Amino acid sequence: MTEYADLNTTPRILLGPGPSTVHPRVLRAMAHPLVGHLDPEFITLMNEVQELLRFVFQTDNQLTIPVSGTGSAGMEAALCNFIEPGDSVLIGVNGYFGERLCDMAGRYGAEVRRVERPWGEVFTLDDIENVLREKPARLVALVHAETSTGALQPMEGMADVVHRYGGLLVIDCVTSLGGVPVTVDAWDIDIAYSGTQKCLSCPPGLAPLTVGPRALEVLHGRKTKVANWYLDLTMIEKYWGSERTYHHTAPISANYALREALRLVYEEGLEARFARHGVNAELLWEGLEALGLELCVPLDHRLPSLTTVWIPEGLDEGAIRRHLLREYNVEIAGGLGAFKGRVWRIGLMGYSSRRENVRLLLAALEHCLS
Amino acid sequence: MTEYADLNTTPRILLGPGPSTVHPRVLRAMAHPLVGHLDPEFITLMNEVQELLRFVFQTDNQLTIPVSGTGSAGMEAALCNFIEPGDSVLIGVNGYFGERLCDMAGRYGAEVRRVERPWGEVFTLDDIENVLREKPARLVALVHAETSTGALQPMEGMADVVHRYGGLLVIDCVTSLGGVPVTVDAWDIDIAYSGTQKCLSCPPGLAPLTVGPRALEVLHGRKTKVANWYLDLTMIEKYWGSERTYHHTAPISANYALREALRLVYEEGLEARFARHGVNAELLWEGLEALGLELCVPLDHRLPSLTTVWIPEGLDEGAIRRHLLREYNVEIAGGLGAFKGRVWRIGLMGYSSRRENVRLLLAALEHCLS
Repeated sequence: MTEYADLNTTPRILLGPGPSTVHPRVLRAMAHPLVGHLDPEFITLMNEVQELLRFVFQTDNQLTIPVSGTGSAGMEAALCNFIEPGDSVLIGVNGYFGERLCDMAGRYGAEVRRVERPWGEVFTLDDIENVLREKPARLVALVHAETSTGALQPMEGMADVVHRYGGLLVIDCVTSLGGVPVTVDAWDIDIAYSGTQKCLSCPPGLAPLTVGPRALEVLHGRKTKVANWYLDLTMIEKYWGSERTYHHTAPISANYALREALRLVYEEGLEARFARHGVNAELLWEGLEALGLELCVPLDHRLPSLTTVWIPEGLDEGAIRRHLLREYNVEIAGGLGAFKGRVWRIGLMGYSSRRENVRLLLAALEHCLS
Repeated sequence: MTEYADLNTTPRILLGPGPSTVHPRVLRAMAHPLVGHLDPEFITLMNEVQELLRFVFQTDNQLTIPVSGTGSAGMEAALCNFIEPGDSVLIGVNGYFGERLCDMAGRYGAEVRRVERPWGEVFTLDDIENVLREKPARLVALVHAETSTGALQPMEGMADVVHRYGGLLVIDCVTSLGGVPVTVDAWDIDIAYSGTQKCLSCPPGLAPLTVGPRALEVLHGRKTKVANWYLDLTMIEKYWGSERTYHHTAPISANYALREALRLVYEEGLEARFARHGVNAELLWEGLEALGLELCVPLDHRLPSLTTVWIPEGLDEGAIRRHLLREYNVEIAGGLGAFKGRVWRIGLMGYSSRRENVRLLLAALEHCLS
């Protein structure tokens, strides 16, 4: 008979693109005994999670919920509910997750158009307006924080452009929410989604999603059923709304954890949290440059939560990552897609964004590179 | 500023249709610090989870994985990967979850045919064969354990019937896996799915799924992309297979918990576990009948893990459930759909299937009804 030992994974310092290190208080919440998913106490907790998500998204949107899947499920929910077959959808592709948006939107019958920038760059308002002027789009999707490149897409004025041509603006905040400002209402964003395992420092498994009034109107005016049952917001909004109609069993423990992670954000305050992410990122950037490494993304649109570094020629980058993991228990990541083998990705997200982590990584890297 | 208190839900004894009470060892695993989702140690853990899932499904199917969503996501994965637009799909409807299967299959463009039995009853081999003889189906879906009615669908010989007419057989084991025998290979089932929060006594959030060789052939021979990105097994099998190609970030903590829950099943042994579920269910049934209550489902196809009881005329069933919850911290559930207001649903699943729970519930109910 096979032996299965006690769970005994090695403690790691997670400085990759997510999951980030989970705060001990969040781990403790995960171990809390469960109530039922229709228990009055769980209903209260759902309301609190929604309030706290509105706080972190900086929105009053009623339909602000954690989708019961990882960030990619949030991405899919943000598309499938607002696309009907034949709809024109414009997607900004300047990294791996823009490609994923195209793949997903195509599966829902959208006529997908791409507007492209090289990996690591971002879009101007004109880039988007020029394409929409040729032909409007029912939906425009942009990645706010590209986890594959470390680029931060400016959002000021973007919704105005999209709305002028009659579209909805969807943004991917997987690697920004809780680490850099995401001001859904001030930016007039229609749909935004994120993941829990990045700057919220919660285990992966839920995807925060917020849906504004314009998007809600599109959802309620659909001529066809949403082509995805599990992510169908016309049903899910009844479970998270006042009716509490059963749809699927909410992941109770994941919601316990998310509440605690959001409470930590609330206690720290958004401004202080963004400042912390900024200060630690700057410390990292200076340190990397002092080691002679070159950062991929120019300072003016560089993401504090995820830094990409060019790998010096001739270096066995995988060997260095394995060494960091084995000798220091520090995880950083390699590149994805076009950046595979060319960059390292270093995350300083949520609880992982700590001065001691930066110093350790720099010291360990210096040792590896010398 | 709003105050958000420490997480402090009341300890409950969960005797509804799920979640069941989670074993303390599983709660402890949930609190274990995270490694990254591509960490070599997590890869090892994924392999163990797969082995243990094969053990509990009693199968050698290579593609046996936890889908990163709740049981309903498992249901959708079991359909969307094997349906192409225009495919004829036959669904057995004898309860709420048969209806859900019809809804989902329709969204993927299937030509859905229903074969019906009254709620609480089950299908004979002839019921299915008679319909397939008229017109074959590419896929037949049946609910092994109907969580809305408490009926257990016999599966011996069913796959032979379905295969004779060239179809795949999908079964819903959400409320049976780990509580009553599910012998995927012996029954020659093509696709089976479940949830973690029932007889496995793990928090909700993952959906065990197993896919046999015939189904794999259909998956690999598709002419169209799977219409659902998040649940697309052609991509997911590469993450859970030897390639480890990134698809989405696996819910690390949920997999820690599932491993521990499956390890508990493995330690107890399947036969002993099924016997325990049987003995405690019989104790419950005798006790309910001694209280003058009538069970909905005849003994020969009654599910041990979920019992449905007719509510005596004139009784305020909601008031009694609220009283059980408030005064005894015991959760049982009301009916769904056609059984709403007409039945109670009492679950004795996994860690909740304990003699002390049965005695307490019977004593509390006796007090309420007298």
